[in-house]
Parts: sequence; structure tokens; C-alpha cells
Amino acid sequence: MFTHQKPLQFTARPDAPDPAFARRFQEVLGGKWGEMTVAMQYLYQGWNCRLPGKYKDMLMSIGTEELSHVEMITTMIDQLLDKAPPMAPDDTTGSTQASEFGQQNPQQTIVNGGGAYPHDSNGVPWSGAFVTASGNLMADFHLNVTAEMQGRLQVARLFHMTDDQGVKDLIRFLVTRDHMHQMQWLSAIEELKADGLDGVPTPEAFPLEEEFDEFSHTFIQASDGEAATEGSWASGPAPDGRGDFRSALIEAHGQIPELAPGDPRLYGTQE
Amino acid sequence: MFTHQKPLQFTARPDAPDPAFARRFQEVLGGKWGEMTVAMQYLYQGWNCRLPGKYKDMLMSIGTEELSHVEMITTMIDQLLDKAPPMAPDDTTGSTQASEFGQQNPQQTIVNGGGAYPHDSNGVPWSGAFVTASGNLMADFHLNVTAEMQGRLQVARLFHMTDDQGVKDLIRFLVTRDHMHQMQWLSAIEELKADGLDGVPTPEAFPLEEEFDEFSHTFIQASDGEAATEGSWASGPAPDGRGDFRSALIEAHGQIPELAPGDPRLYGTQE
Amino acid sequence: MFTHQKPLQFTARPDAPDPAFARRFQEVLGGKWGEMTVAMQYLYQGWNCRLPGKYKDMLMSIGTEELSHVEMITTMIDQLLDKAPPMAPDDTTGSTQASEFGQQNPQQTIVNGGGAYPHDSNGVPWSGAFVTASGNLMADFHLNVTAEMQGRLQVARLFHMTDDQGVKDLIRFLVTRDHMHQMQWLSAIEELKADGLDGVPTPEAFPLEEEFDEFSHTFIQASDGEAATEGSWASGPAPDGRGDFRSALIEAHGQIPELAPGDPRLYGTQE
Amino acid sequence: MFTHQKPLQFTARPDAPDPAFARRFQEVLGGKWGEMTVAMQYLYQGWNCRLPGKYKDMLMSIGTEELSHVEMITTMIDQLLDKAPPMAPDDTTGSTQASEFGQQNPQQTIVNGGGAYPHDSNGVPWSGAFVTASGNLMADFHLNVTAEMQGRLQVARLFHMTDDQGVKDLIRFLVTRDHMHQMQWLSAIEELKADGLDGVPTPEAFPLEEEFDEFSHTFIQASDGEAATEGSWASGPAPDGRGDFRSALIEAHGQIPELAPGDPRLYGTQE
Amino acid sequence: MFTHQKPLQFTARPDAPDPAFARRFQEVLGGKWGEMTVAMQYLYQGWNCRLPGKYKDMLMSIGTEELSHVEMITTMIDQLLDKAPPMAPDDTTGSTQASEFGQQNPQQTIVNGGGAYPHDSNGVPWSGAFVTASGNLMADFHLNVTAEMQGRLQVARLFHMTDDQGVKDLIRFLVTRDHMHQMQWLSAIEELKADGLDGVPTPEAFPLEEEFDEFSHTFIQASDGEAATEGSWASGPAPDGRGDFRSALIEAHGQIPELAPGDPRLYGTQE
Amino acid sequence: MFTHQKPLQFTARPDAPDPAFARRFQEVLGGKWGEMTVAMQYLYQGWNCRLPGKYKDMLMSIGTEELSHVEMITTMIDQLLDKAPPMAPDDTTGSTQASEFGQQNPQQTIVNGGGAYPHDSNGVPWSGAFVTASGNLMADFHLNVTAEMQGRLQVARLFHMTDDQGVKDLIRFLVTRDHMHQMQWLSAIEELKADGLDGVPTPEAFPLEEEFDEFSHTFIQASDGEAATEGSWASGPAPDGRGDFRSALIEAHGQIPELAPGDPRLYGTQE
Ligand SMILES: [Ca+2]
Ligand SMILES: [Ca+2]
Ligand SMILES: [Ca+2]
Ligand SMILES: [Ca+2]
Ligand SMILES: [Ca+2]
Ligand SMILES: [Ca+2]
Repeated sequence: MFTHQKPLQFTARPDAPDPAFARRFQEVLGGKWGEMTVAMQYLYQGWNCRLPGKYKDMLMSIGTEELSHVEMITTMIDQLLDKAPPMAPDDTTGSTQASEFGQQNPQQTIVNGGGAYPHDSNGVPWSGAFVTASGNLMADFHLNVTAEMQGRLQVARLFHMTDDQGVKDLIRFLVTRDHMHQMQWLSAIEELKADGLDGVPTPEAFPLEEEFDEFSHTFIQASDGEAATEGSWASGPAPDGRGDFRSALIEAHGQIPELAPGDPRLYGTQE
Repeated sequence: MFTHQKPLQFTARPDAPDPAFARRFQEVLGGKWGEMTVAMQYLYQGWNCRLPGKYKDMLMSIGTEELSHVEMITTMIDQLLDKAPPMAPDDTTGSTQASEFGQQNPQQTIVNGGGAYPHDSNGVPWSGAFVTASGNLMADFHLNVTAEMQGRLQVARLFHMTDDQGVKDLIRFLVTRDHMHQMQWLSAIEELKADGLDGVPTPEAFPLEEEFDEFSHTFIQASDGEAATEGSWASGPAPDGRGDFRSALIEAHGQIPELAPGDPRLYGTQE
Repeated sequence: MFTHQKPLQFTARPDAPDPAFARRFQEVLGGKWGEMTVAMQYLYQGWNCRLPGKYKDMLMSIGTEELSHVEMITTMIDQLLDKAPPMAPDDTTGSTQASEFGQQNPQQTIVNGGGAYPHDSNGVPWSGAFVTASGNLMADFHLNVTAEMQGRLQVARLFHMTDDQGVKDLIRFLVTRDHMHQMQWLSAIEELKADGLDGVPTPEAFPLEEEFDEFSHTFIQASDGEAATEGSWASGPAPDGRGDFRSALIEAHGQIPELAPGDPRLYGTQE
Repeated sequence: MFTHQKPLQFTARPDAPDPAFARRFQEVLGGKWGEMTVAMQYLYQGWNCRLPGKYKDMLMSIGTEELSHVEMITTMIDQLLDKAPPMAPDDTTGSTQASEFGQQNPQQTIVNGGGAYPHDSNGVPWSGAFVTASGNLMADFHLNVTAEMQGRLQVARLFHMTDDQGVKDLIRFLVTRDHMHQMQWLSAIEELKADGLDGVPTPEAFPLEEEFDEFSHTFIQASDGEAATEGSWASGPAPDGRGDFRSALIEAHGQIPELAPGDPRLYGTQE
Repeated sequence: MFTHQKPLQFTARPDAPDPAFARRFQEVLGGKWGEMTVAMQYLYQGWNCRLPGKYKDMLMSIGTEELSHVEMITTMIDQLLDKAPPMAPDDTTGSTQASEFGQQNPQQTIVNGGGAYPHDSNGVPWSGAFVTASGNLMADFHLNVTAEMQGRLQVARLFHMTDDQGVKDLIRFLVTRDHMHQMQWLSAIEELKADGLDGVPTPEAFPLEEEFDEFSHTFIQASDGEAATEGSWASGPAPDGRGDFRSALIEAHGQIPELAPGDPRLYGTQE
Repeated sequence: MFTHQKPLQFTARPDAPDPAFARRFQEVLGGKWGEMTVAMQYLYQGWNCRLPGKYKDMLMSIGTEELSHVEMITTMIDQLLDKAPPMAPDDTTGSTQASEFGQQNPQQTIVNGGGAYPHDSNGVPWSGAFVTASGNLMADFHLNVTAEMQGRLQVARLFHMTDDQGVKDLIRFLVTRDHMHQMQWLSAIEELKADGLDGVPTPEAFPLEEEFDEFSHTFIQASDGEAATEGSWASGPAPDGRGDFRSALIEAHGQIPELAPGDPRLYGTQE
């Protein structure tokens, strides 16, 4: 069960409106790797977690925190939209205005009346498909590391796309939390191993004897890029401790496919 | 530049048709974590890679191999659809047939004439949004680990949803390659660090002094789940080597948001 | 800022698993009119609300409550999936099992490992496009009435699609809150009028003298359905108090469109 | 059955081309609340209406009229695109041109050859998910009121984003019809009640005794916004005539969720 | 401008309800190649047609007819849904019922109350992206031939998926019109050539001297399939009358791509 | 099975970066008619082709070639993004820069770090729904003609939207291959007929005696455009050699639809 209080987790107040940045900031709100995604992803992982205890509780805490990040970015975008120009400026004095008019998202004014929405920086709606909650914590925690890396990367890029100190301060807060969350997921991955719950390869519980040994440690060269085999993935010990990497040119081990004629009631081409 | 040869990388031949499994197998072809995704993700990462050498070459090799996986699963699904029943069976003798009719995907017959397509197990189209190629290899390699884990997880689950030995053999091949690829990405992550190219937090190059220290090592409790602070993410040394984790209840550090009235020409509610 | 506590707002515990209902229940979780939509819609309306006070505060309260509804339905679906059959039942004894196998959503097992996700009853992902927050409270509150009506309608239909008392109890709770919320939005609409903030037509502030009088009270018959003019919308006083409704056959008042030839560099067909 | 005649319902002729407005005008053609949506929504509601007579006939009339609105906006956009600049202007004399180039939609030229299409102002395709036809007229008529309000709101905003008198005249026509249609749906809602067909709460036919009384009139405070209980939705008589509103802090009435371990063949994390 | 009359263009009355077929029939209503697509595609092509006269007028006629096809299929689906079973049948007497329950679309009851909607046979919404109106009639008429072929193919397949004579009669009508429309578009293609308006290659007006001669008539073998060069596309005169086809193995004529390091503020991996 | 080599099929090297063109060029990479679509469409048609021999082999060759086109455009876009301006230029000296800033796609920098992705020129993701592989070669080859025409049309338009000789050279290569591929599909259509495999109407194998003769050669006038019957589709011999075209005003041959009341448990409006 959730409750809400009115003050924000961190200050979200720009020095001045900036409709072009209001468009770009949507990316980390409603884009694939934005705050909507991590909030929902961690909450669904928590709700679906069938193992009670520290992992489930932790997921609920971080998912709830991310909701507060959604709230801050929304509030920031609203203020960046305070003076979006309704028409193309027709004077020739300020090219900044011209480029900002060009770059702005028309839906933020026409549809939202000067407000944020769960869409990305091109106005494509956020999708439930961005959320993954597989039931396997090892797989999901690795994804969560990624989510924080991609998120921090995007916010770090946005840091250089504005001079507004208020915006930069919020970005600094978000970047810091992404740093913390990266470490958190990396620690949780190690703890899963230490607890003997999940390992690599994931899922570890799948019987390894069902695998084909000749394919389990071979880097397959399907491109002629000669440097590819210089990496540690092509020779030397593999991280599963079960043998050495090797490399081989890609080879066909299967049949030339020949399909049976289809049911004539499907009117596929056949003789 | 690509070339193709007719034999498959591995045998793809079922013992018998099974339209219900033909629907389910679409998940690892055209679902979010299916072979379409990894093929395109690794290729776009390779094409966009601005650093020449082993990483770029390796990405092109594995992306190209994944195309051959797309081909095998497509070929398998086609054969599983050889005898999809056009109508609900009206006898009462075989509930297997009834459930298979119910579970089948109508588009595989009506639209494709008995064939596979780049859609998931519910018939939702594959989306270009599934592909991430951020330009930062550390972030992307972590995502790639995930992709192989989610992929192996799904194929391992499918292994228990069929008795067909031909299908199971292809699954065993795919599971084995997912195992190899997990190790490959983990090795590549270590190699990036060893080469001094990327580190954690990612992006490492973002100046840490821009972060707010009080938030960079704190696990924030936003849920009352009491076990959440028992994990290694809430106390003890953090993996960035820059201090110890601590935990704290979530607190508001920001303002109560008050927004300026909007432009009256936007007709938002205001006094 | 949000916080979470572990007990649910209301009990969510089915008497027994039911994978076919687990699919159908997704509709009111991740469908267009499901709990994800109302939670996000009310929160975005609240965040974007530029008028401080009772309306903004109320929006934040109800939006937060809806998050707790998301949580309960997710928890219920998880339990309904406790024993999803991995394969078609091959005995002929139980057609219920056969139909349940046929009706189940393969992603709930293959992708989620037996869990809920923000998708509808056909597995189509929830979309940010489902959220509307226009900045005009009169328009949005009317939409909110609708959301509660469509939501209650769907849950009421689901009530008759299960015999499970645990599921029915949760449905009864959801139906009751939808009842309350319908009344809440209707009261809020009256209060907006009483406060002189917004009226009908919406937006009321748009200057009525810009309208064309001959079209503002006329029901236009574009179909030959003879009963259409029997309604109160075709004669008698109009609810804006500015005149009487009338009806007229549809008529063309515009030009026959003739378009200029396009730029030849666009290669459109032209002489 | 439909027929078409060449003259438009109202004049659609701009004074001059304006590619930036051609992009923005797409919102009310192919956006969520645009003319495509109301045309299709009213037609599907009419086709699916199981009650013969005035409501069904009226739905077919208004749905058909909306098709004529789609036609007028399409025609207008085509003319606004008569001279879309193919390249960025490289002189520095006109910042209007620069901003218009920046704001234009590249698909209107590259894909459509200077034409409109069923997409919104950001180029996101119109979706069949925008249409709701629930079979319950009370629920749907409330949605239709909303559709006309959101539509009028957007067109009213666009009115201030252009100086072109031809465009403004078409907008004035559309605004006028939205005014009429708002009144029409409000009248139809009253008529449904007068005819004893549908009421509030909707669906009225769902047995009220299945509801939980303690939750049916309570405004639940899940946020600390103190003004939320000042509204008429928190005290005083409720519009269903069945009691008074009251308010209460949100409380947990449910269990702490504990889920059974999953099927081991799904490889979820478990001990 | 459009008008509507109540009788259908052709009879749409099934002998009996069939919820499983009601799902499948959605494909030719709201699928990629369904009646929604052709109706909207022909209308947008007509509206955007910049050449007045027979082509534009013909497009408006056929587009309007297709709206009447949408209406008939919607009406048919509604009747097929008259008795959709709300729950899985729990007796074992009728496996038809079991498979029909499994195959049905839950949204047709839960969302639409027993009605059709603009979605495909898997419940994926119709998309405005299905419509192409390029402004070049030769390109679009070729697409229109395709649309009628894919449409007829799907309806012909559906013909064998039902025994209901009422449904079969409507299918026969649709198949017949698809036959007519195929011929219509093929005739229109010839007429475009005869009128000297458009030719092949399309767009014909693009200056052929900008092409690279060595690539304009060569079938490039990128797969080792030995039979590919046996076709008329690999030798003999090409249909443009400008030379003979030849074939050649695929060859690289371009550079090995090496990309410049990115802007360091984008934090891509670089040395 | 696929292999890759590092040199490109053709040179892809721009003279200078151009972020605005980098956005527009996405259309022919990840748009509906872009190279992603033809690559995947031809490959799926080849994989699903149940007739062994020249058609299947040819499909695999051309599908594989199109992958190399995807690679070249991706590489070109990457280089066009070498210097995307992170912020709006604040000087007034260069309106080109201003318009380029306005027109650029923010995801190409924020998400991809200066790289291409499988999305269209508005940032909407490529969709698996763009691929059609029906199993009927006649229907699909007609679609393939279309794909090459729409593709060539778009690239030809782009040719006039840049002055960059490097970009223009790649466009010239793509235009040339589209020319070749148009001829290839037209030849393949003729060869299908010559081989007696498929004909028109498609599917030819559907029994013509099931059609209604009175509707199979009639152009139906549903619009009052008087020129529509001047075309060859309204009189004279039809291309199927089975009679003459005629024309007739649209007429209703069906019933006025009256639907049965729905199941009361669905709460549709009824008396
Ligand atoms: Ca965050
Ligand atoms: Ca793979
Ligand atoms: Ca609710
Ligand atoms: Ca309208
Ligand atoms: Ca048709
Ligand atoms: Ca190509």
C-alpha cells in the first residue's frame, strides 16, 4: 500500500523556462530507460518475487523511491514549459528562439496544456513492454544494473545540454542515485551467489548435461573481423570454471531446410 | 556485407507438428528477449561502435551468428505448423486437440499461411525499441549479459513445455549458446576494465565531484519491509571502493511544488 | 514523495489457481481502462495541476490509492498462476483443463515465470498514450468519470466469469471503490462550476463569438436513421442556456477540393 | 452503407502554406483525441449498439459527420504543405523559416509527398486502441463528452498558434461543432436516465448489495495534501442519494502478501 | 462529405454464434490487410491526390465502398458473439466448446460487451501505420493490388475455417469484391502508363543518369542457393527495355567503416 | 546460415556531418518502407517458402543483400552525427545551425550516443508488423514491387534534401538497386504465371464459382465524382478475360442490422 507526501525528494526548480530542454528531458521520464521504467520494473519484480525477505523488501523500497523520481522530473518539465512560444518567432533577432521553437514537442502544449507526460523525447508513448520481471532474480538484477547504467548515461549526456543551474542540480541528484543503484544491484548479484540462490549461467538450475559440450565454450567467428579472437572470450579459462574458451569459424551443422507443402486450403504457392 | 548459405547452423526438425507450441516458440523469435532482438542489438552495437578493433569485430561476429538462430527457429515453427487444424475439432475424443486449437495463434494460418513471423507468443509485433546500442560498451555489455540470461531462461522454460525430441534438441543447442554468450559478455566486461576503457559507475568519465556525496552510498528505505537493510547493499564496503554503504529512511529534501499559472491561451484551469 | 507499506489495502487471496482467469484479469491491470491507467492518469493530472489547493491535493490522494489497486491485482494474478499447466493436458477427462490451457497467456509463464505484468488480457503492453492530463480540470474530470465507469463495467463483467470467492471478494472491493470514485468525479465537476473555474462548453474561456451560430445548436443528420431526431438533442432547450436545439440534413458548405501540383522533386503524380 | 459527395462540409482553404502548422494540425486529425478517433468511436458504438432506435441512429449520424471532419482537416494539411522547404535554409535572413524547417514533420514530405496521414503531431500512428465502444451507453456517452472537450480544447489552443485566416475559419467551424456535440452528449446522458435505461453508478444493474458499504462513500486520503478534504467529495450528500461522503486516512485491510514457491521448471528464484 | 444509410451493402447474418470465429474474423476487420486498412488507405490516397479527375474520383468511390465493408464485418462479428461463454465449460461432453472457449478473445466480452473493435485476430490494435498514401499513384496502385490480394487470401482461408452458411455467404461477397478490385487496380496501372503519367522504375521521373549502370541490371547472389540464377530475373531482357539482366556474386565495393571518436560529452567508449 | 565481412557493399562516407539529415535518413533505415523492412520481409518470405528451388533461393539472396543496405545506411547516419550540437546555438549568425538544431532527433544523441537505430525519421520504432510473408508468392511479389517503389520514391526525395556528394553517391547506389529490384519482382510475377503456379485473381485456386457474378466485374460508385467511370476499370474487357467491366451506383443488398440483446451479465444497454 502506498502513501504520498507533498514535498519532493529533492528540489526541482529551473532557473528559467526552456521548451527545447523540456522535450529532451522527457527521455529520462518516459523513454525506454527512464524513471517510469525503473519504477515499474522494480515494483513488478517486488510484487512477483516468490521468495520472502530481504530481496523482496529491497525491491519494494527502490521501486517506491523511483516513483519519487518520476514526480521530480515531471515537476521540472512543467516549469520548463512555463513560456513555450505558441508560434514561430517572426523576428530575426534571436536564433536561439528559432531553434527552440523548432525543437519543441507540440504535444506538450496542444495536448497537455504545458505539461509532462509518460512519453519519450520524440513523443512516443511509454510501453509496458519496457518492464521485465522474469521471476529469476539473477537475470533481473543484471538487467537492473543495466537500467541504472543506461539511465545515468542519458542523464550525464543531458547534463551537457543545458546551462540552467536548477536543472543541473536535479540532474546531479539523479546521477548520484544512479551511481548508488548500480552498486546496489552489483552487491545484490554477489549476495545471490553467496546465498546459493542463483548463479551463472542463468538459470543455473537447468541441467548442464542437456547442453552440447562442443558449443558451450566456443567463440564462433561469423564475421571476418580479425581482431575478434584477441579478446579473453576466445581463449583462456571461461568464467564458469568448467573449461577454456576456444574459437572456430562458423560452420553449418544442420540440414538444408525443405518444408512440406502446406494445406491447400491455405493457398500457399505449391506445385 | 553479409552472405548466406543454405544449410542451417544446427538441425531444426521436429518429430511432429504442434500448433500450440508453434505459438509459444514465437516468444524466443520475436519477443522482447528473442533472437530478433539479440541479432539486431549486437549488429547495431557493432555498426555504431566508434572504437575499432576486437570489441567491434566481436560484436559483428556474434550479431551475425544470431541471425542464424533467427533462421533456425523460423524453420522450426514452420514445420510445427504443418497441420494446424483450421476449425475447432467437433468430436469429443481428444482434449489435447481441443486445447491445442484453443492455444494456437490464428495469424500463423490466416496471415502467414502456416509460417513464422517477427511477433511474440501473443502476436504482438517485434519492436525496434527492443534494441539498445548506447555507444557505451560497459552499459551495453551488461545489457547483453541480461539478454542472454533472459533468453536462456525462456528457452529453458520452453524445454519443459514439449515432449518432442526434435524441438528439444534445437532448444538444447540454443541453451548452450546462451551459456557461452553469457560467459562471453562477462569476460568482455572484465576486459573493458582491464583495458582501462570503461568502469563502474557507468559512465565512469562523468565527474564524480558533480555528485552529491550524501546520496551516493545510501540505501533509501521507502518501504517498511524490515529485511531490506539486511543485505550487503545497506552496510559494509561499496563496490566502487569509495566508502561504505549506509541506510536511511526516505526523506523529503525538496520543495512543495507550486506551478505558475499557464498561458491563458492554453485554457488550463486557473483563477 | 512516496512511501510503501507491506500489507495490502484489501485482501487478495484466491481460493485456487486459475490460469485462464489470470489472463482475463490482466485487462483491469494493464488494459486501456485498467488500474495502471487511472493511477498514472490521476498522478499526472495532479503533478501538472497549476492551481494549488483542494483539486491538486485530491488528485494526488486518489492517484496514490490507485497504485495500491495495481498492487492488489498483481498479487492476485500471481496466485492464480500458481499451477499453470506447462503442456496441453493429454488425457480426455477434463475439458475445463483443456479450455484453460487454451485460454492461458503464454507470456505469464514463459516470460514472467508465473507472474503479472503491465499488459492487457491479450498481452498487448500498457501504453503511456492511455494517460490524459490536459491541464483543464473540467475536461479531465469528465474523462475520469468515464475511466471509473469503464473500469467498473469491466470488473462487473469479470465478476460473472469466476466462481472463486477470493477473487470475487477482491472484485467487490474494486467495484465499490469505482462506485465511490464515480461520485467523487461527478461532485468535483459540480464544484468546478460552483467555484467559477471551468464550465461547459469546455474550454468555456474560448470566446463564443468566434463560433458560427448556425452550427452551434444543430443536430446534423448524416445518416438516414429516422429515430435520431426523436432525442432531446434535436429539439428543445440546449443545456448551455443559449438557445434551442434544431436538426437539419447534412449539407455541403465548402469547396470541391482542388490541390495545387506538388513540388516536382517529391515525384507525386502530376501532368 | 456509406456514400460520398465531393464538396466539403465546410471550406478548408488556408491563406498560405505553413509546414510547421501542418505538423501541429495532425494532432486533431490522428492524435488520441482527433477526428479519426471520434469518427471511429461513434461508428463502432453505433454498429455495436444492441438497442434499436434513437440512440443507435444518432450514433450513426454523428459518426458519419465526423468522417467529413477528417476529410476537411486532411485537405487543409495538404494545402499547408504546398511549399515545404526540402532543405534547411542557409541564409540568415529569416528566422521564421529556420524555425519552421526545424518544426516540420519529415514524413509529410519523404513518405507522403506533401500530404496528411493518420498520425499525431509527433508522427506516432493513430491506434485502434483509441476507440472505446463498451456496449454500455452511459459509460460511452460520458467518454464522448470527454472526447468533444479534449478535442475542443486542442483546437482552441491551435487557434492561437496561427495567424492564417483560412485556417482560423476552419478551426472556428470545428470549435462550434465540438460545442454542439458536448451539449448533445450531455442531453443524451440525461435522456438515458429519463428513459430508465442506465444510471449512476455505472453499470447500475450490478447488484449494490455486492458492494462493501464501508468503502462506497469514503474519500481515502493517501496523500498528505491537507486541502483534499475541503471538497464536496469528502463530506455532505453523495450524488447517488444513498448516503453522505466521509473521509479517512488510507488503511491496510489486507494481508502481507506471501507467494507460494513457483514450479521449479520455471526457474524462479527460490530456496 | 459522407452520408450513411441503414441497410447494409450485403447481408451479414450468421446461422449461429461462434465466439472462436468472432476472434478470427477480426483479422480482416482490423488486421494489417483488413477492411479498416483499405478504407483508410484509399480515402487518404484520394484526399491527398493532387491530380484532379478520374483517378481521384475513383479513389473516393472505392474508399467509401470499403467503409461499408467495415460495417458488414463489424455487424457479423457482433452476432457471432451473441452467446460467448463467460467461463470455461466444466463438463466434459463437448470439446468444441472447450476449444472455442480457449480460442476466444477476452476483450470482445470484457471490454466491448460482446462487440467488434478495430483490432486484429490477436487483439493488437489497428495502426495508422498500415496506411500508405505516397502521392505517387503508380507506387500506390501497386500497393493497392497487394492489399486486395492479401485481403482475398485471408478471406479465402477463413472460408475453410467455418461451416456457417451465413458467414460463408458474406465471405463470398468479400472475395468477389476483392477479385473485382484486383482487376481494377491492374487496369489503373495500365492506364497510368497509357496516360503517360507514371512508369517503371517508379518514380520514373528520377533521372536515370544518376544511377550506376553496373548495378542497375545485375542480380546479386548473396546466398549460395544455386537455383536463384535460373529465373528470368538473372538473364535475358529486363522489363525496362534498357538492357539484359545478368548475375554476379555479391562483392564489396565500399570501405571498411572506421568511425571518428564521438564527442566526449556523450561518454561513448573511446581511448 | 549467415556470414559477414567488414568492407561495405558500397562506399558510405559523407562529406560533412549533418544532424538534420541524420534524422531524415532514418526513414529509409527503420521506416515502414525502409531497408529493415525489405531485409526482413524477403528473408521471412524465403524461410517460409514451402516450394524449393529458384524462388526460395532468390528470396534468400535478395534478403541477404538488403542486410548489407541496412549496414551502409547505419554507417552513413553515424558519420552524419559526428558533430551534433548538444545545445541550441545562441548566436544569431547562422540560421542553418538553428534549423538543424530544431530538426535533429534528440534520441540519436541522448540514447544512442551519436548513432543510428531501427526507428523512423520521427523516432517511432520499426515494427515487425511491417513484414508480410503470406506463403502466396504472387501476393507477396506484388507487395515486393511496391516495397521497392516506395523505397525508391523516398530515397529519390531525399536526394533533393542534401547537397552532400558523399550522401548523394550512396543514395544513387540505393536508387539503382531499387530500380533493379523493381524489375526483378516484375519478372518474377511473370515467371510465376508462366510456371502455372499462381495467377490473378489471387489466390487463383479459390473456386470462382463461389463468387457472386453480379459483383465480380462491377465498378461501384459510392462517391459522386463524375470522372470515376471514365477509366478503363469501369467499362471494356477486364484483365481476367472473363467478361467486361461495368459500373453501377452503390446499392444496399443487405438487411438493416438489428442485434439481439446481449447477455445481461455484460451490462450492455438494453430494455
Ligand atoms: Ca532513478
Ligand atoms: Ca541466440
Ligand atoms: Ca481503482
Ligand atoms: Ca469533430
Ligand atoms: Ca473490401
Ligand atoms: Ca535496398
